[in-house]
Amino acid sequence: MKAGIVGATGYGGVELSRLLSSHSHIESITLYSSTQSGEGISESYSHLNTAQDQLRPLKPTAMKAELDVIFLATPAGVSRKLTPDLIGGKAKVIDLSGDLRLTDPNAYTKWYKKEPAPESVLKQAVYGLPEWNREAIQSAKLIANPGCFPTAALLGLGPLVKEKLLDPGRIVIDAKTGVSGAGKNPNPLTHFAHTQENVQIYKVNQHQHIPEIEQQLTVWEESMAPVTFSTHLIPMTRGIMATIYGELTSTHSIEQLYDCLTAYYGEQPFIRLRKPGHYPGTKDVYASNYCDIGITIDERTQRVTIVSVIDNLMKGAASQAIQNMNLAAGIEETTGLLHIPVYP
Amino acid sequence: MKAGIVGATGYGGVELSRLLSSHSHIESITLYSSTQSGEGISESYSHLNTAQDQLRPLKPTAMKAELDVIFLATPAGVSRKLTPDLIGGKAKVIDLSGDLRLTDPNAYTKWYKKEPAPESVLKQAVYGLPEWNREAIQSAKLIANPGCFPTAALLGLGPLVKEKLLDPGRIVIDAKTGVSGAGKNPNPLTHFAHTQENVQIYKVNQHQHIPEIEQQLTVWEESMAPVTFSTHLIPMTRGIMATIYGELTSTHSIEQLYDCLTAYYGEQPFIRLRKPGHYPGTKDVYASNYCDIGITIDERTQRVTIVSVIDNLMKGAASQAIQNMNLAAGIEETTGLLHIPVYP
Amino acid sequence: MKAGIVGATGYGGVELSRLLSSHSHIESITLYSSTQSGEGISESYSHLNTAQDQLRPLKPTAMKAELDVIFLATPAGVSRKLTPDLIGGKAKVIDLSGDLRLTDPNAYTKWYKKEPAPESVLKQAVYGLPEWNREAIQSAKLIANPGCFPTAALLGLGPLVKEKLLDPGRIVIDAKTGVSGAGKNPNPLTHFAHTQENVQIYKVNQHQHIPEIEQQLTVWEESMAPVTFSTHLIPMTRGIMATIYGELTSTHSIEQLYDCLTAYYGEQPFIRLRKPGHYPGTKDVYASNYCDIGITIDERTQRVTIVSVIDNLMKGAASQAIQNMNLAAGIEETTGLLHIPVYP
Amino acid sequence: MKAGIVGATGYGGVELSRLLSSHSHIESITLYSSTQSGEGISESYSHLNTAQDQLRPLKPTAMKAELDVIFLATPAGVSRKLTPDLIGGKAKVIDLSGDLRLTDPNAYTKWYKKEPAPESVLKQAVYGLPEWNREAIQSAKLIANPGCFPTAALLGLGPLVKEKLLDPGRIVIDAKTGVSGAGKNPNPLTHFAHTQENVQIYKVNQHQHIPEIEQQLTVWEESMAPVTFSTHLIPMTRGIMATIYGELTSTHSIEQLYDCLTAYYGEQPFIRLRKPGHYPGTKDVYASNYCDIGITIDERTQRVTIVSVIDNLMKGAASQAIQNMNLAAGIEETTGLLHIPVYP
Repeated sequence: MKAGIVGATGYGGVELSRLLSSHSHIESITLYSSTQSGEGISESYSHLNTAQDQLRPLKPTAMKAELDVIFLATPAGVSRKLTPDLIGGKAKVIDLSGDLRLTDPNAYTKWYKKEPAPESVLKQAVYGLPEWNREAIQSAKLIANPGCFPTAALLGLGPLVKEKLLDPGRIVIDAKTGVSGAGKNPNPLTHFAHTQENVQIYKVNQHQHIPEIEQQLTVWEESMAPVTFSTHLIPMTRGIMATIYGELTSTHSIEQLYDCLTAYYGEQPFIRLRKPGHYPGTKDVYASNYCDIGITIDERTQRVTIVSVIDNLMKGAASQAIQNMNLAAGIEETTGLLHIPVYP
Repeated sequence: MKAGIVGATGYGGVELSRLLSSHSHIESITLYSSTQSGEGISESYSHLNTAQDQLRPLKPTAMKAELDVIFLATPAGVSRKLTPDLIGGKAKVIDLSGDLRLTDPNAYTKWYKKEPAPESVLKQAVYGLPEWNREAIQSAKLIANPGCFPTAALLGLGPLVKEKLLDPGRIVIDAKTGVSGAGKNPNPLTHFAHTQENVQIYKVNQHQHIPEIEQQLTVWEESMAPVTFSTHLIPMTRGIMATIYGELTSTHSIEQLYDCLTAYYGEQPFIRLRKPGHYPGTKDVYASNYCDIGITIDERTQRVTIVSVIDNLMKGAASQAIQNMNLAAGIEETTGLLHIPVYP
Repeated sequence: MKAGIVGATGYGGVELSRLLSSHSHIESITLYSSTQSGEGISESYSHLNTAQDQLRPLKPTAMKAELDVIFLATPAGVSRKLTPDLIGGKAKVIDLSGDLRLTDPNAYTKWYKKEPAPESVLKQAVYGLPEWNREAIQSAKLIANPGCFPTAALLGLGPLVKEKLLDPGRIVIDAKTGVSGAGKNPNPLTHFAHTQENVQIYKVNQHQHIPEIEQQLTVWEESMAPVTFSTHLIPMTRGIMATIYGELTSTHSIEQLYDCLTAYYGEQPFIRLRKPGHYPGTKDVYASNYCDIGITIDERTQRVTIVSVIDNLMKGAASQAIQNMNLAAGIEETTGLLHIPVYP
Repeated sequence: MKAGIVGATGYGGVELSRLLSSHSHIESITLYSSTQSGEGISESYSHLNTAQDQLRPLKPTAMKAELDVIFLATPAGVSRKLTPDLIGGKAKVIDLSGDLRLTDPNAYTKWYKKEPAPESVLKQAVYGLPEWNREAIQSAKLIANPGCFPTAALLGLGPLVKEKLLDPGRIVIDAKTGVSGAGKNPNPLTHFAHTQENVQIYKVNQHQHIPEIEQQLTVWEESMAPVTFSTHLIPMTRGIMATIYGELTSTHSIEQLYDCLTAYYGEQPFIRLRKPGHYPGTKDVYASNYCDIGITIDERTQRVTIVSVIDNLMKGAASQAIQNMNLAAGIEETTGLLHIPVYP
């Protein structure tokens, strides 16, 4: 397959490039950048200092004809403009931004404060959460790759919500993320001297990933109420932990909950459950496509705590996009993705 | 005043020593250690490399007669043994461990898995949260200095719980802490290579600070139910953020909640409220005695989010102990404590 | 004394403000900013969230008449313009930038790539390294506060160079610094995701602190040759370690070298020598005015290694400026500066 | 090939395991541990939480008959005892410890303070620095994998020393390393709260890697004198930078030096040279087998600065061991090793 990466100089783009370069079905990778075309990628990324790849300007007509897959690793507001020109040809399009995830254009406008993508485009987009949407992805031409926080939160919540074990009105998600989630552009919040030795909460009740989480929860449970979702910036580069608090609709043992998760995830190649009483840390999935999940019940409160961790740039962005590509291309889902986490 | 520090080689002890050495009412500081007596403190702490202080063996009879204040910065299980011999003399005793905080000895046994202190001693101990217990502290001879997590959580929750604005059955506290909270002894969890780039959850629903939080909440609100409380280890040295989720008992505006906090804390020298829509980070209180608090309501869920930050070694331990000492000694509460946070 | 801080919103300015606010001889502190006048300092620094201080526009005529001391915590190129209007009045002026440190204007032009200060101003400026220039500072009206790297390097080298124990042609200084040395403005080099898990070397052989180091070394040893000086950016916020390599001019024992250092520094309040075979780490001086020094000889090579550490924002900037202020004002040199390092 | 890893629970062992599991010529991996046999590897490493591998006890006779390659990732002093029983069979043995690197047993005793390996074993060991010793490695049955610091230092120094461009009496190597170099066992030096915000120098002039560096330098340049070598512990997990200072034996331009490096390294798959004036950071090689090198001359001093970076657990340990395995097994040298560095 011939792959193209638009927005190749962002963190998501550079991870896609790294992963695709060792993918056995990828024959060529072309890097596109609207702002830095003509430069070499190594001018932006010194860890690629001997790479020969040049950044190309976008030529949608040629791209959709020649490429087999196009990844859009662009900021919010960009892919809604690019997508109409890139779909309909040979290339499958996988969008890593939030532009195509919300089926309701009004929700997009409300949370992203931007113009939404055309409804005709939105309708073609398949939500690329493979563990829950595998069949639709396999036949998709246009895939909306999930956000990093929704990936962690939804994979943690899915089985219990689908089985109506959790009170739909009482879900609280407290998320912690590394700084790379804020992207490559320097700003006061990502300055080392400010971020080191600091935990910061941001976008309280206003994060644009909230409607994405709620949209999928409502697919599973019609009566889902709005959730509480908070994000914290942690002095680390990669990783997300979603600590999820819920209340049981009726009495269940921890073994029953664990069995429920096992029923859904036992065969999933990229989900690793922890035995009851054990919980993953973010470093357990560093630089891998895994989502690790732990769960417990507090006997005193009958409240459930679910701990779900991913690498925000991998399962939260680039490697999940490749998992989607594999499915859409009809090749083995795990191709090029079975990296053991890098530790320590 | 002549001060003695028992457990002088732990992180709490070394912070007490630092703070007392610039306290205008302290005439002498004697360091005690049961395990390292005879050594100089600088053998344990190279940042004190020209300090002359020698660690002394404990001699309770002499100590209670000669000292004006004794700080117990010892691990759980130690001060319950030491306290009976240290009280009743001239010295006021301030215990930084958890041994004297729970009025119910059975709760101590259950959560600490140790023998409790004698009930006669527990009855004399005053809970040293100055913002809520100032009068009792002023006449106390024995003070139980609050735990780091309870300090952050209780200062955040106090006004709304006391005013019955929060549903007593729906409180979730998600806490994040720096590694110094785990103490000085090296172990796999505090190894740099393991902790860096890692968020880890630990002691889920089992942390010994849970009964301490609930005990005080119940003082404010009789019908308080058990809370959910989680602790996360963050790759930083100092700092605690408690992110607290609650549900309003009836409709209130954010301004009303802010006014409620102001009514309680407007005159408190060490609590700094953030304007609605603003939230503190842990670095805002680094190396200071401040507790900074932000609050908001989610219009969609009518849920409240309270963000409370402290330095776990300062307001969460050593500087709060000195605040208690000041009160008990009848001197100005802020003496020796008005440090501006160290930033960046 | 009434103090003014120009450039109050930089890291140096905010540290000056913190230190002066607890200085017993300071009656008032006025903050000046050319770019943010009218704002409150807490808009830039949330750790000062209840501070009332407003940033004022610069009015040199009034300032020099009303203030007793003016600190210039401005970027290179600014104080050379401001100084002529600020000197000659009541106020003593202490410049924390590099503008007034080099006595040779051509050297300034060469290394700073900027116009130098007027020679008449340069001639009045006294180099503010108290341990070596105390008398001149005591009578100075205009003080050039040393750079962070020169402070660490010169304090380490002084005694051995002055006593001609080191070959003046063979000095290599390998310096490591925290990120705060790069200042508050965000840029790609200070982005957390880039800096974490990274050691970076920069300005190799081109750092503007090189001529400052050589100027002072030449004062001590006329035949001093150019030195080799490298700077490395370390994933930490504060601290400088200068590892200094030299060759002995003749055979000496480590005890002789240690005695040489003791002769110069034994009575210095802010220099702490380590016993032979022991070396300080940067954390040993965190948030303090100390410079800690260790030294050894390699029996195999007869080469000397000197390890000198400071906090770059304290002894390398703000607290050393206050040490200079104390001397110039005729008050006790250590006033307001005897902070024990913050650890851990 | 069937591979065995002895010392599988150390950081080196776990990296070997990760790399071999995606190596196309490896058919099976068996993990050995003398202290934890019977346990699963995931009990020690939660990032391997679904791995099935059990730790086996050592059975040298069976191992040397059944395995094709045995990696010894054991502490100093262990492989000297194990090696005699493991060599002479089918298995090639690659030792990652320092036990077999020094050809002079007296040097081992002096620097390691332990009994050396038998001379008969030492004579069979080939020093596994592929870029300089490829042919010998290709026919080796027993390989001494280089130390992490020697790898960085020697790859930086090789071309200029071999070509006698550097004064053999004036080499200074200032090395910086991440904390993982200290191994998995917790101790006060690796405690997060102590190491964060700290640069520490250790084993000054006494590091056991010094004789290893000098041994190879003397191979290249008979008149080599002892070098100065210092190691600094940096608050990061992975990475080594060796900053190397030398003096030219005669005048050369930077282009000539760069050409010299290019002549030796232009075709080396794992060495990436930076253009003059550019220098690598440790993050440029994170989780990869690359060694990146930059070089410059100071016109003022005619001194050379060479900057050489590696990942201490990869090119400094595990991935270099696999590079050696590939060579010794007669397969393509780069097999399983062409990982792009993980960034950010």
